[in-house]
Amino acid sequence: MAQPIRVGIVGYGNLGRGVHAALGKHTDMALVGVFSRRDKASLELFDAAADVYPYADITNFKDRIDVLILCGGSRSDLPEQGPALAAHFNTVDSFDTHAKIPEYYAAVDAVAKPAGTTALISIGWDPGMFSLNRMLGEAILPDGASYTFWGKGLSQGHSDAVRRVPGVQAGVQYTIPSESAIERVRQGERPDFTTRERHVRECYVVLEAGADAQTVEEAIVTMPDYFADYDTTVHFIDEATLKRDHAAMPHGGFVMRSGSTGAAENANTQVIEYRLKLNSNPEFTASVLVAYARAAYRLNQQGDSGAKTLFDVAPGLLSPHSAATLRKELL
Amino acid sequence: MAQPIRVGIVGYGNLGRGVHAALGKHTDMALVGVFSRRDKASLELFDAAADVYPYADITNFKDRIDVLILCGGSRSDLPEQGPALAAHFNTVDSFDTHAKIPEYYAAVDAVAKPAGTTALISIGWDPGMFSLNRMLGEAILPDGASYTFWGKGLSQGHSDAVRRVPGVQAGVQYTIPSESAIERVRQGERPDFTTRERHVRECYVVLEAGADAQTVEEAIVTMPDYFADYDTTVHFIDEATLKRDHAAMPHGGFVMRSGSTGAAENANTQVIEYRLKLNSNPEFTASVLVAYARAAYRLNQQGDSGAKTLFDVAPGLLSPHSAATLRKELL
Repeated sequence: MAQPIRVGIVGYGNLGRGVHAALGKHTDMALVGVFSRRDKASLELFDAAADVYPYADITNFKDRIDVLILCGGSRSDLPEQGPALAAHFNTVDSFDTHAKIPEYYAAVDAVAKPAGTTALISIGWDPGMFSLNRMLGEAILPDGASYTFWGKGLSQGHSDAVRRVPGVQAGVQYTIPSESAIERVRQGERPDFTTRERHVRECYVVLEAGADAQTVEEAIVTMPDYFADYDTTVHFIDEATLKRDHAAMPHGGFVMRSGSTGAAENANTQVIEYRLKLNSNPEFTASVLVAYARAAYRLNQQGDSGAKTLFDVAPGLLSPHSAATLRKELL
Repeated sequence: MAQPIRVGIVGYGNLGRGVHAALGKHTDMALVGVFSRRDKASLELFDAAADVYPYADITNFKDRIDVLILCGGSRSDLPEQGPALAAHFNTVDSFDTHAKIPEYYAAVDAVAKPAGTTALISIGWDPGMFSLNRMLGEAILPDGASYTFWGKGLSQGHSDAVRRVPGVQAGVQYTIPSESAIERVRQGERPDFTTRERHVRECYVVLEAGADAQTVEEAIVTMPDYFADYDTTVHFIDEATLKRDHAAMPHGGFVMRSGSTGAAENANTQVIEYRLKLNSNPEFTASVLVAYARAAYRLNQQGDSGAKTLFDVAPGLLSPHSAATLRKELL
C-alpha cells in the first residue's frame, strides 16, 4: 500500500476532536499531530497517544504534513489562520460565515495560488453537503424552487442568545423543521413559506435562583432576530435534567428541490430531497472535512492549486478507491 | 451573453423527447437537431419546429454541434453508437447495464482519448445521482452501511415479464419500497434485510378473453428472478382502467448511508438520506443528462478528454453560473 496521507489538526475543540476520531476510520490517512495554542494536558484528546505541538512551531512541519485540517472558528481563527497556513500547507476548513465566503475565498486564494498549495474552504454540511445539493438541484431542475429546513438540531447561536437573557442560568435551543411544510414540498408544491411556517423553536432553560419564569419566557419569545418571528416554546427544567437530556449535539435538516419537467400544460413534478439526521453535528462536519482532506491532497498532487470549494472538486477524489473500482462497484 | 451550447439529440423515444423538453428550460443551450433512423413524421416531437436529420448523416454536423446527448437503449444502441459517436463528438449517455459499465467505459475511452472528445457515460439517476450518493456516503462515513430502495415506481423489466405470461393481454408492475425497512435505517440501525423485506411488488393486469385469473396470478407470483423472492400482489383490471390510471411513468427511491462516528464505546449514529420522488422517470433522467451535457462541453473546452463518469466531474460544471456566483449565492 502507498504511504498514508499525513494529516495535521489545527485547533482542538469539538470539531478538532471529531476530526481526530474520524481519521481512525480511514486506513489511508495518518495523524502527524495536533497543533494548539494550549498545553497537551488541557486538551481532552480523543487518543491520548497523539502528539501535540505548539501552534507557533507549525511551519517546522512543512515537509512532514500533506494536508492540514483547520478546526478553528469562523469569527476570529480562520480569517487569520486560513491565509497564513495556505502559504505553507494544503488546507481544508469549515469556514461557515455565509456572507463572508467571497472575501475569505479571495484572501486564501491570493496566498495559495502563488504558494502552489490547495485550500478547500467552507467544507462541512452547511455550507457543504447542503450547498452541493442546493446547487445540483438547481442545475438539474432549473424550473423549480429550493428549500432548506434545519433540524431537529441544537443551535449554538440561539442557545447563546437564550443564555444571555437575565435570570437564565443555563439553557439550550432546538430548531425544529415543520413536518407539514416538508410534506407540502415533498408532494410537489412550491409554497412561499413565511419564516414562522418553516421552523419552530424550543428552549430548555434552567432559571437562576429567584428569577421569574414568566419574565424570562417573555424576554425569550419576543427577542428580535432570534425568536420574535417564530413560534417558540420555553420549557423550564432543573440543572440535572439539562445535563442528562441535553448534552448531545444533534442536528441535520433537509435540502429539497421541487421542479417541473415536460410540457407546461402537462408538467410532471419531480422532487429531490437530501436529508441529514445527525446525532453529533461536530463529528459529522469532521467526517466531511476528512474526506475532503484526501481530495485536497490529491488535487495538489495533480498540480491543481489555489482556493477551492466543494463545487470545484470531482466527487471521486473523496473516495479512497480508484476510479476503476468506483466505476465497477459504486456506479 | 456567450453563444449557446449547441446540442444534438440522438434517438427519440421517451428519453429523447424528455431531453428535447428539458433543453427548453436552459437558456444557455440550443438544440441543433434530432438524429433518428425514423422519419420526422413518425416521431412524436416535443416541439414540431425542431429539425430532424437522418442518423446516417450525423458526421456532417461535426462542426455545428458541441455535444450530443445519446438517448438510445443500453442493450443494442449505445454499445454501438457510444464509441462510434465519441470518435467525432462530445457525448453524454445513460448507459445503465451496471455489470457492463467497465467494458463500455473502456470501449468509449479507447475512441474518445485519441479523438480528443469528452464522453460522459452512465448519467441519469441509477446509475447516476444514486451512484453519486452511494459513493459520497461511503467516503464520508466509512464505518457504515449503504442501502438503496427503489420506488414507488413503474419497472419496465418487470412489466415486460408480466406481459409475457400466457393469458396476460396488458399490464404494469410497480416496485414499492418497504416503509418499515426505510424507517429502521433512518433510526440509525444497520439491518441485514432479505430481498423480501426491502421491497414489495404490485401488478395491474388486463386478462386476455377466456384466461383464468388464478392461473395467471400463480404464474406471476412464482416467477423466478422476477417475483418469487418478493411479496407480490396482482390486481386484475380492465383495459380502460389501465389506460386511465397506469399510463404515467413514476419512479424514484432512496439511497441511505447509516454510519457511526466518534469513540466505539460511545458512538454517534449519523444518517444520510437522498430521495427522489419522480412523476416522470424518463423526463428526470433527461434533466440530469442535459445538466451533464453542459459539463461535458466545458470539460472538453478545458482540454479534459476521454470517457468519464459523474465521479470525475466537478459539480460546479453542471451549473450555468460562474464559480464566483456559486460561491456567493449557493454555498
